[in-house]
Amino acid sequence: MMARVHVMLKDGVLDPQGEAVRHALHGLGFDGVGGVRQGKVIEIELAEGTTEATVTEMCEQLLANTVIESYSIELI
Amino acid sequence: MMARVHVMLKDGVLDPQGEAVRHALHGLGFDGVGGVRQGKVIEIELAEGTTEATVTEMCEQLLANTVIESYSIELI
Repeated sequence: MMARVHVMLKDGVLDPQGEAVRHALHGLGFDGVGGVRQGKVIEIELAEGTTEATVTEMCEQLLANTVIESYSIELI
Repeated sequence: MMARVHVMLKDGVLDPQGEAVRHALHGLGFDGVGGVRQGKVIEIELAEGTTEATVTEMCEQLLANTVIESYSIELI
């Protein structure tokens, strides 16, 4: 089995990477672009039977900085 | 409307970030972890009516390095 974890900066936290992408897209002529946020996606191969609680623990301990980042978990 | 773009290193391309995460998870005692791949997720607010073809163009021109990265687009 596999877990896909999305880690995004929380709303209100400045996202300079996303801002740089937005600026570059405008520079390339993509005018319809509003806000851009950039985050991480982490795909983890797991032993069968691993629970979502275990993946939550991985996020809390390592994958996300929960002060400024939020995460979501998808088991595949 | 919104587009969510996932950019991942292609299979066979070394992923040092993912490898570091895998190593750290093992160090924390998460034994059931196999391979880990880390990529980017980019959320873009778009003007209504923007087509997937336009987002593909953004990926080709800016968001992904198609030599070593693959991307997938999800319109929300």
